[in-house]
Amino acid sequence: MTEPASTTARDSVSYLLRSLSKVLAEDHSREIQKAVECFTTANKLFVYGVGRSGLAARAFAMRMVQLGLECYFIGETITPVVEEGDAVLIVSNTGSTMSAIQVANIARRVGAKVVTVTGHRTSKLSHASNVVLCISDNHDAMRPRLAPLGTLFEAACTVLLDGVVAQVMERLGQTEADMRARHAIMV
Amino acid sequence: MTEPASTTARDSVSYLLRSLSKVLAEDHSREIQKAVECFTTANKLFVYGVGRSGLAARAFAMRMVQLGLECYFIGETITPVVEEGDAVLIVSNTGSTMSAIQVANIARRVGAKVVTVTGHRTSKLSHASNVVLCISDNHDAMRPRLAPLGTLFEAACTVLLDGVVAQVMERLGQTEADMRARHAIMV
Amino acid sequence: MTEPASTTARDSVSYLLRSLSKVLAEDHSREIQKAVECFTTANKLFVYGVGRSGLAARAFAMRMVQLGLECYFIGETITPVVEEGDAVLIVSNTGSTMSAIQVANIARRVGAKVVTVTGHRTSKLSHASNVVLCISDNHDAMRPRLAPLGTLFEAACTVLLDGVVAQVMERLGQTEADMRARHAIMV
Amino acid sequence: MTEPASTTARDSVSYLLRSLSKVLAEDHSREIQKAVECFTTANKLFVYGVGRSGLAARAFAMRMVQLGLECYFIGETITPVVEEGDAVLIVSNTGSTMSAIQVANIARRVGAKVVTVTGHRTSKLSHASNVVLCISDNHDAMRPRLAPLGTLFEAACTVLLDGVVAQVMERLGQTEADMRARHAIMV
Repeated sequence: MTEPASTTARDSVSYLLRSLSKVLAEDHSREIQKAVECFTTANKLFVYGVGRSGLAARAFAMRMVQLGLECYFIGETITPVVEEGDAVLIVSNTGSTMSAIQVANIARRVGAKVVTVTGHRTSKLSHASNVVLCISDNHDAMRPRLAPLGTLFEAACTVLLDGVVAQVMERLGQTEADMRARHAIMV
Repeated sequence: MTEPASTTARDSVSYLLRSLSKVLAEDHSREIQKAVECFTTANKLFVYGVGRSGLAARAFAMRMVQLGLECYFIGETITPVVEEGDAVLIVSNTGSTMSAIQVANIARRVGAKVVTVTGHRTSKLSHASNVVLCISDNHDAMRPRLAPLGTLFEAACTVLLDGVVAQVMERLGQTEADMRARHAIMV
Repeated sequence: MTEPASTTARDSVSYLLRSLSKVLAEDHSREIQKAVECFTTANKLFVYGVGRSGLAARAFAMRMVQLGLECYFIGETITPVVEEGDAVLIVSNTGSTMSAIQVANIARRVGAKVVTVTGHRTSKLSHASNVVLCISDNHDAMRPRLAPLGTLFEAACTVLLDGVVAQVMERLGQTEADMRARHAIMV
Repeated sequence: MTEPASTTARDSVSYLLRSLSKVLAEDHSREIQKAVECFTTANKLFVYGVGRSGLAARAFAMRMVQLGLECYFIGETITPVVEEGDAVLIVSNTGSTMSAIQVANIARRVGAKVVTVTGHRTSKLSHASNVVLCISDNHDAMRPRLAPLGTLFEAACTVLLDGVVAQVMERLGQTEADMRARHAIMV
């Protein structure tokens, strides 16, 4: 018992990798295909999420910009108005965050498509969405200690959206070099 | 071959999971132990990173706040000054982002500890750090198409730092319920 | 008519300065006194606002940190939970932004004090607040061209809150040198 | 002398209004004309600044988006690469913030125009800029107590840039109604 704490990080990483393999083994192909269709045919793409879900959403948005799409994060300095023909990606584990539901409702009202990544298929947010990518959670006894709160959802979301990036990349015929050339100034 | 694009997302997710298993199999126990020591004994904890690395850093910072630590993200509205006895976590794949190196240098000058998560052990940033958590990359032919740019580093970083969260949680004797009680307002 | 455009900026600046003098001539002393009391006796101070109002709020929050108060901006990476004994400053011109009302309601429910800076005294947000700093608007024919949308409110807010900073500074016996010493790393 | 603190806020507001009238009485017409020319003819407009200067810059950027320009804040989630034919607005009181100088140098190297709003005409940042809008400071004995640190610069910057907004508005033939129609979702 010399390094009990180090064991914990290792246990948690192993637990997360096993859990990711499990929840991402589910077939999301149809929904991803629809989502990619929305993103690549939209005039403008908007992305939204709060907390750690919002960070997964932002990571996706950065790639969309590097892929040449016009993409914005709702709530940041620079966000034009959502209009008909646009698409909105919302990430929310519970699907019950008020501002996320409001964004979905406003988007639908103006005729924009809404794609949601969520942990709850029957949430208000899911009902307001055109496409729902639902990620399952684990419910075993170790989860609270090794992957507290929404940890698994957020990690699964990050990896799943990176998969969507690869598909958008292929769909648009973009290469890694194209993306690098569009990489923002990092100071 | 009706849905080639869906195949891509699936391929990318599989590739990422395999790659994560590989790069996270490396033993980071000693560095993690030292990092957890820094974070839990520091007066204040600061976190920094730009781009997608910065998002992985922010996700970690949110958990530290939920674990009851005084933690700040450098560059956001609310950031007090770094002082002796503080710790700084910097996430940078290349280890050559100028502002990251500057943050490390300023922190060291005032007597704060610097923990770096990076993809390059011999970078300027690594040299300026007290603890270096180095994440390897893949160099196979599929990577540019299935995990373009820093995708693998960023995903590995996210999972590894979630492991660190679990360890800090144990070290501080915190439960998931404690963390939930400290969860910020999400509107 | 050689430089008509330059004339516009000049006209706008003059119009703003005249309007600021007018709307800031109103006596807000009692409300400011109450607000300063809230801010300086609170355990933690939270600040909130969206859009340009949110920027005025952030500018105020930065000064509170430099004055040694524990202050957070709701919605950023680092925001602990609002509790009894805390204070929340909300900036909203209309007083009808949903998330602002929600923040006020949550804050009141847990027993925190709410101070609002608004352009509408009878709004939902005002009703949910303990202290209301109401800034009047101009309604002349030039306003839409020289100070479109909430321009005057936002500028007045910025100046008024800088006045509040000076008062908090005096109340806490802080000097400019004290504030400079707490200035965050700017890289 | 029952309410000495309230007196302070009032004194500070009066001091700021007097100081703003003084520093904004200087003729910036030529530089503003050049800046407006840069902003309205650029392919993309980028905005940058750290701390409270960054907030003034963000407030300006929001208006540019509402005026229909393609405008980005460097360092936020969504920032495409700066290219030839673009323009960059940088706000920095000292003109010596490292990242601001770096942004200017990168922008110039690729052939973008740089407009700087600063308190120091002879700074490194000024030298790297195509257009320099220099705002003077006050140096009287009351300033540290009534307008600590960069308070006056930041307030003057906000008002001056609102003047520039009015001029860009006229130049582009935009109305307040046009701007309102482009107003982002605020949830």
